[in-house]
Amino acid sequence: MIDKFALPQLAQINLATGVISVAEQVIIRKLSDMPAYYQDQSAVRELLKTDPIIYSVYMPKQPSEVTGMYTATSVIEPGQIGNEFYMTKGHFHLDESAPEVYLTLSGEGLLVMQTHSGQSQVQDMKPGTVSYIPGDWAHRTVNAGKTPLVFFAIWPVDAGHDYDSIDDMGFNRLVLVGDDGPHIVVNPHFE
Amino acid sequence: MIDKFALPQLAQINLATGVISVAEQVIIRKLSDMPAYYQDQSAVRELLKTDPIIYSVYMPKQPSEVTGMYTATSVIEPGQIGNEFYMTKGHFHLDESAPEVYLTLSGEGLLVMQTHSGQSQVQDMKPGTVSYIPGDWAHRTVNAGKTPLVFFAIWPVDAGHDYDSIDDMGFNRLVLVGDDGPHIVVNPHFE
Repeated sequence: MIDKFALPQLAQINLATGVISVAEQVIIRKLSDMPAYYQDQSAVRELLKTDPIIYSVYMPKQPSEVTGMYTATSVIEPGQIGNEFYMTKGHFHLDESAPEVYLTLSGEGLLVMQTHSGQSQVQDMKPGTVSYIPGDWAHRTVNAGKTPLVFFAIWPVDAGHDYDSIDDMGFNRLVLVGDDGPHIVVNPHFE
Repeated sequence: MIDKFALPQLAQINLATGVISVAEQVIIRKLSDMPAYYQDQSAVRELLKTDPIIYSVYMPKQPSEVTGMYTATSVIEPGQIGNEFYMTKGHFHLDESAPEVYLTLSGEGLLVMQTHSGQSQVQDMKPGTVSYIPGDWAHRTVNAGKTPLVFFAIWPVDAGHDYDSIDDMGFNRLVLVGDDGPHIVVNPHFE
């Protein structure tokens, strides 16, 4: 469906911080929004006393077109919980034909992806990295650095989100804090 | 159609220069590729002696999915021809439901847009600007600064390009070099 009345839109993001000054929507995920996502529940309980922000998503005014593309910036704070880095929940798209593109603007991290059939892939993220996520790959981002991980994301308006699958089974790869940088390991609790 | 064998992809762009080091395709537009796009044909003839590069487009390896999204960086060189700034040809999408998103990375310029029905809009571009171009709006970028104008673009794989309409009729707004910055004027030759 073509919306003949759709008008061009304009937003301004801070390329260093990812902040969109006139964001129409800001989603803030604190640890209390995702306590079960981390392995070390003793560390989770301790940190819940201060309930830190894990990540924020800034969305500008979005297109009215049903054929449009959404944009957002995501900011993953630096930090760790037990031996895991701060990370996003991660999700599949409901529409498996709807891909997503990330352009990393600041910071360093990892993009953890997997399919329903069990394939997995982990890619590095650093300033200038363009990550192409096919429609049927779940995606989570992990901040493996000491500064905020900031990236710009674009995905089709009708993609939809399936958070439940990851909430149930997790990702089959974990990113752990190692002495010499992040370690990617098989998730012992992956179902 | 969902390509179940589509794999995640990774590219690396230089956020300052827009250059993708392992670009699968680089499109270079010299003045000799678009001499009729400028008003001052005397200035065009003089500049054709050196035939400068007006702009370059870097495309990473693109998705195999027909439902995918293409990405590219565009680099518009600084310069002027007569009293017009260096600019891209500009085009419509063949699929009027296929939008495009620009994220400006470096430099300063203008995004000139118009519909087949005669609407026009001109937006500023500067680092961090997110420009949302609905599917039925033609789009051209103009470098109004003294450094390269660099932006990241994303559009649906099946958008298609119509350059002929602009080649025939031009844009209904021109961006001219003014004493106090760019001047947007009605194109006297717009058909």
